[in-house]
Amino acid sequence: MTSPIVAVVGGGQLARMMAPAATALGITLRVLVESPTASAALAAHQTVVGLPGNADAIAALLAEPRPAVVTWEHEHIPRDVFDACEAAGVPTRPGIGALVYAQDKIEMRTRMDTLGLPNPSWRIVTSVEDVRHFLSSHDGVGVLKTARGGYDGKGVRVISDAAQAAQWLDAAANGGPRVLIEEKVPFSRELAIQVARRPAGEVVPWRLVESLQVDGVCAVVTAPAPRASALLEREAWTIAATIAAKLDVVGVLAVELFQVGERLVVNELAMRPHNSGHWTIDGCVTSQFEQHLRAVLDLPLGATTALSPWTVMANVLGGEREQLESALADVTDPDAKVHLYGKEVRPGRKVGHVTVMGADLEDVQARAHAAAAIVRGGGAA
Amino acid sequence: MTSPIVAVVGGGQLARMMAPAATALGITLRVLVESPTASAALAAHQTVVGLPGNADAIAALLAEPRPAVVTWEHEHIPRDVFDACEAAGVPTRPGIGALVYAQDKIEMRTRMDTLGLPNPSWRIVTSVEDVRHFLSSHDGVGVLKTARGGYDGKGVRVISDAAQAAQWLDAAANGGPRVLIEEKVPFSRELAIQVARRPAGEVVPWRLVESLQVDGVCAVVTAPAPRASALLEREAWTIAATIAAKLDVVGVLAVELFQVGERLVVNELAMRPHNSGHWTIDGCVTSQFEQHLRAVLDLPLGATTALSPWTVMANVLGGEREQLESALADVTDPDAKVHLYGKEVRPGRKVGHVTVMGADLEDVQARAHAAAAIVRGGGAA
Repeated sequence: MTSPIVAVVGGGQLARMMAPAATALGITLRVLVESPTASAALAAHQTVVGLPGNADAIAALLAEPRPAVVTWEHEHIPRDVFDACEAAGVPTRPGIGALVYAQDKIEMRTRMDTLGLPNPSWRIVTSVEDVRHFLSSHDGVGVLKTARGGYDGKGVRVISDAAQAAQWLDAAANGGPRVLIEEKVPFSRELAIQVARRPAGEVVPWRLVESLQVDGVCAVVTAPAPRASALLEREAWTIAATIAAKLDVVGVLAVELFQVGERLVVNELAMRPHNSGHWTIDGCVTSQFEQHLRAVLDLPLGATTALSPWTVMANVLGGEREQLESALADVTDPDAKVHLYGKEVRPGRKVGHVTVMGADLEDVQARAHAAAAIVRGGGAA
Repeated sequence: MTSPIVAVVGGGQLARMMAPAATALGITLRVLVESPTASAALAAHQTVVGLPGNADAIAALLAEPRPAVVTWEHEHIPRDVFDACEAAGVPTRPGIGALVYAQDKIEMRTRMDTLGLPNPSWRIVTSVEDVRHFLSSHDGVGVLKTARGGYDGKGVRVISDAAQAAQWLDAAANGGPRVLIEEKVPFSRELAIQVARRPAGEVVPWRLVESLQVDGVCAVVTAPAPRASALLEREAWTIAATIAAKLDVVGVLAVELFQVGERLVVNELAMRPHNSGHWTIDGCVTSQFEQHLRAVLDLPLGATTALSPWTVMANVLGGEREQLESALADVTDPDAKVHLYGKEVRPGRKVGHVTVMGADLEDVQARAHAAAAIVRGGGAA
């Protein structure tokens, strides 16, 4: 059998969850994992151990039989990797021309402005004076961000005193990531929209979802977003489809959004499967993981129809329980779909998630929370 | 992480499709595969290459870290394997006490009679004269079967002349499998029912399904079975629950049934995931593969609710196309869930399946057929 090989850089749970989709489609998943105990290592069909900055590791990822395509489970991909793939004649999807907007928040904000998409007020800052000036015109508060390297609340800081920016600004002056400041958007809630796009341009969206963040980390996703008007959802689709097309994204694109009244503001972009789309594994005809594989292989995209009126996904953050697998015996709700990532438990670390579907939103939410709490080890919520 | 290990004997597609379920649950799947290119080899988390009759292979399957349980993807398990597992202190689920009824059709028929479950008329035959006598009292036609070793129509033969039985009877007299003959049941259609059972006795059924066989091979499964009365479905559940309990089955049990008017007759048993349950992967809250893992690990069983009014699963039998993966580009129906088994294509061999769900049965059936035909390579149906 000549099975197409998809190579993935990054060995976390996002790469791991591509494996079941690849198995079903008869696709071979070759993953570059940071360590032999990485989340994706056991599940992947072929494993290369190494860091994306290591040329030998990338050479092994690209070795014969050559992968049909290289894709990513995170944004922190050195430029050299793209060059190595090009030299080997293996396409990178999304390519560097798109991915840079997920890697660098200044590039992203600049591009959103150019495209006329709804940005918060923002500016690049290089001095404490810049920051002070921004704060003084924004009610004394702002969201300071490093342009690169942040995730899950890291590299993001709400400040009300310009002096709080000094450390990151110093780092930026000494070769660290550039720094930007954004207005603290007075949002009523956070939403997310995902689409998948094929190389030739076909785009398919999933439903607009609500994302509840706790301490900068996604905690609960409700699909579809409750009380969202058809107009609001259409606006979200337009924003995501515009970004996907104009930035030439291939694969899955997630756009995190703020809702302000009946307006949307772009928060962040991810060009890969995303936590806000885990609900699609159990909740949709086609999951974000299968769709990402389909898109980067330039295969027809699957239907994104939801299978139930409501789907709620609750993350399991590392807590009391050290061996999460022991939780499988304790989750007795027959509708709770438990997903464990095979990661060592550390407090606050994303180590699994639980999905519940049903017709009664309050019931579904309560059961997803309860099951996630049991897995975590804190008892029922 | 200490992840529970489930060991599986047999490397076909049934073992392969346990892997995605195991990955989601954080369970390690260790599979004994017949060859490094077996269907399950790439997808399994850990692989041991060897035949179940090889003691070294079984020792490797049972090696430290010890599996929590050993289970099967087919019935052809030598007695020695059970002894080796017992010596190693690893439970076998289902155990030999149950599995013998799936291994041996004479044991099964005898037990069904004892339990008062609906058997066809049947008898053990050891001579051509026995066969002639049976035929003469059954309108001159009967279904000759070897008690052991058959599958997918092999070891089963409709005969109308006793002389046709001579070869199998000779083999039986020389140490081959015993032979039985059954009445040719005048069924209106074939149905199948699946249940899962935990060691302590909890039993959960899926819906009754219709199974269309072509040349003794399952071709299409429609779930739920169209035009089946609630009474008929309840009778099927009772039959399966009785068999599961009385035979002490642990794991998934499939009972193939004949419908005769409004009566059911037991055709065959399988104590493992079964082709008639492939629709549950996309079509139910809990698939037969996840449920089998849950049952053999003595975990709470998941809900078996169907996600759509109708689900149709069409097998892909080996046909014109040698590289099935090339079909992925040709199946443009966004609702067609394509499953490929990574097996070398041989004419008539089960190499994949397609599932379509929806509200309009005729539409769903037509689309499942069409997609399976495209994958096979014969063009649209």
